[in-house]
Amino acid sequence: MRPVALHISPLSHIGLIVPGADLAQIVLASLKRSGDELLSNDILVFAQKVVSKAEGRVVQLATVTPSNRAIELSQLTAKDPRIVELILNESKEVVRHREGVLIVEHRLGLVLANAGIDRSNVDGVDCALLLPVDPDASASRIRNDLKRETGIDVAVVIIDSIGRAWRLGTAGTAIGVSGILALSDLRGRPDLFGRPLETTEVASADELAAAASLVMGQADEGTPVVLVRGAPIARAEGSARDLVRPKRMDLFR
Amino acid sequence: MRPVALHISPLSHIGLIVPGADLAQIVLASLKRSGDELLSNDILVFAQKVVSKAEGRVVQLATVTPSNRAIELSQLTAKDPRIVELILNESKEVVRHREGVLIVEHRLGLVLANAGIDRSNVDGVDCALLLPVDPDASASRIRNDLKRETGIDVAVVIIDSIGRAWRLGTAGTAIGVSGILALSDLRGRPDLFGRPLETTEVASADELAAAASLVMGQADEGTPVVLVRGAPIARAEGSARDLVRPKRMDLFR
Repeated sequence: MRPVALHISPLSHIGLIVPGADLAQIVLASLKRSGDELLSNDILVFAQKVVSKAEGRVVQLATVTPSNRAIELSQLTAKDPRIVELILNESKEVVRHREGVLIVEHRLGLVLANAGIDRSNVDGVDCALLLPVDPDASASRIRNDLKRETGIDVAVVIIDSIGRAWRLGTAGTAIGVSGILALSDLRGRPDLFGRPLETTEVASADELAAAASLVMGQADEGTPVVLVRGAPIARAEGSARDLVRPKRMDLFR
Repeated sequence: MRPVALHISPLSHIGLIVPGADLAQIVLASLKRSGDELLSNDILVFAQKVVSKAEGRVVQLATVTPSNRAIELSQLTAKDPRIVELILNESKEVVRHREGVLIVEHRLGLVLANAGIDRSNVDGVDCALLLPVDPDASASRIRNDLKRETGIDVAVVIIDSIGRAWRLGTAGTAIGVSGILALSDLRGRPDLFGRPLETTEVASADELAAAASLVMGQADEGTPVVLVRGAPIARAEGSARDLVRPKRMDLFR
């Protein structure tokens, strides 16, 4: 596979997403409005927030009763105990905590702050937005819906902005994948001199997520879906779980 | 700043880079050959390897005498003691080691495997390729050379493929920056509902590095320079050092 020019463009007119929204139909309406259509090597990248909203992963904070452990941890982290309760429910374990910081291993295996939960405001009611239950499945569902409607088999990636150890700032990160390999294994491919590379596994879906995140913006831009054309990533049945370093291989917890 | 379509294309005919190579001239020759020219909002992204080669950061392994500490660590990590000697010379401290693994804090502040040193083969001689001495300065130099030749003030980013805690696979990461902010501070910008975002610092230069890395490929593609057009990153005097989390704020060492 030769590298090619990569083109990433935001879809316009996505609008606010409500529970039950049909993201495939919204994408197709947006493309039609801008006179574009899907091609078979396209990759659609969705911000986690719109997928979570469409799937109704919204919890009204007034309905949450924090456990004793959540109350204790909320005092140590200076966070809302109801949010901490939701974080703990979404997590396998707390990895680090201190004032203002609560980093967990999410049930999906992701190590991230606050289990990826954002505060959200729905019609004036204080809410929290959780990650999709199974982002790989969410990506597959959108991909299948698009294929059924158009006959075109695009790939779909769902991303979130996630912090890193050692480095400041968040970077777009793949949390759900359908139709591409998340991790490209280059071991054994020759380098320029014909010698095999030692060990190179590239987190292709994370690189794609970061690229898409640049175009999405973070704040008021309102472009939560972007179309990626020309990405040199192998089409295959991948999973974002392939990007999670197994805990037994992780030297940094 | 509104998000815009992002276009990333590899420069062709870069060829093998030798010590003393003038990267600005090589880029301009490549662009001329393909009938393209620089625009003022362009960003040129260079793989670290070509910058290091041009700067002569090549060490013949036969000239390296490992210290006692390097020999001891080479036994613990099953690595070449001469490479370990070079790694230690390039590093402030060893962060983790075990068989096959040597993760250090590089003198630039980067936490990464093997101090970013690659084995290299120059005219049949076994060599190691070190990171540039000061990648921000390298980026500035290339940027200034291009500006002097063309009058166009592009931004320049130098990237390496770096592993991450918690996640498998490497991702393109910015190690040198000139002409853009490495870290975009979105704190206080309104979200879609007009409320200020809580805390969002985005590692824009790392996201850009990841995007460029996708197009560069890793192995025999030979496209170590890519041109990025349309990136919604603020032009300013930034530094890749802004992306390094200060050790006192790092919970994962």
